[in-house]
Amino acid sequence: MASKNQMTDPLRVGVAIRAQLQHEIPKDLPLERDFREGTDYTITDHVVELHRTLVKDPRTLELMTGLVTHLHTFARETALTHAEWTKIITFLTRVGKESTDYQNEFIILSDTLGLSALVDELTHPKPAGCTDSCEAGPFYVPNAPEVPSGSSLAKAGTHGEAMFFSGTVKNTKGQGIKGAKIDVWQADGDGIYDVQYPGTTEANDRGKIVAEDDGSFCYRGILPTAYPIPSNGPSGDLLRALGRHPHRASHIHFVLVAPGYDDLTTALYPSHSPFLGTDPVFATKKSLVCNVVEECNPEQWAKMGFQDGEVTNGRVWVWTYGFVLPTVEEVKQFTRKRGSAKL
Amino acid sequence: MASKNQMTDPLRVGVAIRAQLQHEIPKDLPLERDFREGTDYTITDHVVELHRTLVKDPRTLELMTGLVTHLHTFARETALTHAEWTKIITFLTRVGKESTDYQNEFIILSDTLGLSALVDELTHPKPAGCTDSCEAGPFYVPNAPEVPSGSSLAKAGTHGEAMFFSGTVKNTKGQGIKGAKIDVWQADGDGIYDVQYPGTTEANDRGKIVAEDDGSFCYRGILPTAYPIPSNGPSGDLLRALGRHPHRASHIHFVLVAPGYDDLTTALYPSHSPFLGTDPVFATKKSLVCNVVEECNPEQWAKMGFQDGEVTNGRVWVWTYGFVLPTVEEVKQFTRKRGSAKL
Repeated sequence: MASKNQMTDPLRVGVAIRAQLQHEIPKDLPLERDFREGTDYTITDHVVELHRTLVKDPRTLELMTGLVTHLHTFARETALTHAEWTKIITFLTRVGKESTDYQNEFIILSDTLGLSALVDELTHPKPAGCTDSCEAGPFYVPNAPEVPSGSSLAKAGTHGEAMFFSGTVKNTKGQGIKGAKIDVWQADGDGIYDVQYPGTTEANDRGKIVAEDDGSFCYRGILPTAYPIPSNGPSGDLLRALGRHPHRASHIHFVLVAPGYDDLTTALYPSHSPFLGTDPVFATKKSLVCNVVEECNPEQWAKMGFQDGEVTNGRVWVWTYGFVLPTVEEVKQFTRKRGSAKL
Repeated sequence: MASKNQMTDPLRVGVAIRAQLQHEIPKDLPLERDFREGTDYTITDHVVELHRTLVKDPRTLELMTGLVTHLHTFARETALTHAEWTKIITFLTRVGKESTDYQNEFIILSDTLGLSALVDELTHPKPAGCTDSCEAGPFYVPNAPEVPSGSSLAKAGTHGEAMFFSGTVKNTKGQGIKGAKIDVWQADGDGIYDVQYPGTTEANDRGKIVAEDDGSFCYRGILPTAYPIPSNGPSGDLLRALGRHPHRASHIHFVLVAPGYDDLTTALYPSHSPFLGTDPVFATKKSLVCNVVEECNPEQWAKMGFQDGEVTNGRVWVWTYGFVLPTVEEVKQFTRKRGSAKL
């Protein structure tokens, strides 16, 4: 046993480990109330009370209180067992370990649980009549080349069928927005983005279109097809365990910006795409689904700007959409009104 | 653009990626109902509905429904922003990446959010009058040496003050339980477990005590002191951000087993310990806190089995506790009754 000079205070914290700590050791707090399931002071109340006593930043406290309460209520309502808890810990550890800079499995998990789409909807409230938003996804590249309306975004040789996209960017009063820029990026006819091809150096199926003064714009390109989100990691294993598939519905991504207006990040989906109702990331809002029609008249192709031989299979897919942007001020007012309606 | 033989079906899934998939591509499901915040069919309803349609195992469906509902409600109630979501993703990725076989940061995170203690309480319901349980923690070693009651568990030279622990193992009728075995493990007076010392080969402050026929047992050892949980990883950073400390209250761990009785994993805490009200893993139930008294009479030390010179500082810390174990049958009945009370 210890000699007197080794041991002076039996109540002390282990000296060897204590020396390594950066924590201040606070005086104990008067929180020694018993907590017990089935009483009016459970462990949930105890954790929340501890945080209420110690956490200084109000937003941190709000988030921690919500997190602890929902996490505990989930465990309580489902009577989560220790064996299930162990599986969850093992799974989450894998999700972290198998994440890379290019494939963050926690983002995919959040996407496939609908959390990302919900956070997007909460972060970007849209007044009635304005175009809905959705997440940008992993294939956005900033500083895409700026091109005039009417350009082709697909290089010669790009796989897929010809598409003509024609859009308008208007405000809530129905007026075209001058100075709007439309960042477009999409997969090709094989469901593959330019950046996914090895050795890509130039943008393809991607560009920043400057709208006409009346807010209209168009581009020639390729009809995108459906493609799967990465499913080779733990989040893919979860999808499989749930009987779900990883295939996103076909879509084109857009970011619209115009001075004085609220930026819009969104995507549009052709109604002919499979997977619209079972999109793995829940980004397929009805308002973003469009009828895309086949134009089989070569005279019309020429008017759209297609050259001889560019159109295969005897058709151009014609896609039209009218984007509506709220002003920054309208979003502020809407958010304020919605906030006070909640109180 | 593509030649005709490259491109036959514009509706198809990207062929290149599709070939790599193990997923069956299911027929799309009739789930194309619009989901929208503030309506009676939100994205939460949509995700839950998709799972209800696809998930075959009822327990998996129950867990996923609870998880998605609480995760979404958390985001909605706190109006979680995209910036906050990004911080959470980054943090969880770190928690996974920095976990090791010896220090799983997700377990520590679960512990410090009170989830582990709650799951333990839910998994091990204890009828009234029975000793409460708590988590075993990371220092349990199976197959500790079996020793008779009255043994010393501390090797000569172990740092700390002398302690005499005296306990009884009884059933709910107050009868001593014959054949009870008590697995004990604890830190020494420096707050350190045997397995934490480099090069440890023999058990110290640890052993499986065989109780007397009347269920009583005792051992000589060292009064444990408080020690911190690991706080050098992301879960430690979170504790610091919340103004919390990592110091567990002093304690002794126990696993009690006896034929016909429900196994009990628990720990006891001396009332003199700091951190009882702010224990970072919330395992300090009131019923497990004991008054540990100082015995200063050398005649009593000899009766306990201490040799001359083994007692330092002129005192032995005497710790007594009466464990009460329910039978397996009593736990079954209790669980059944509690379950039906919930309905």
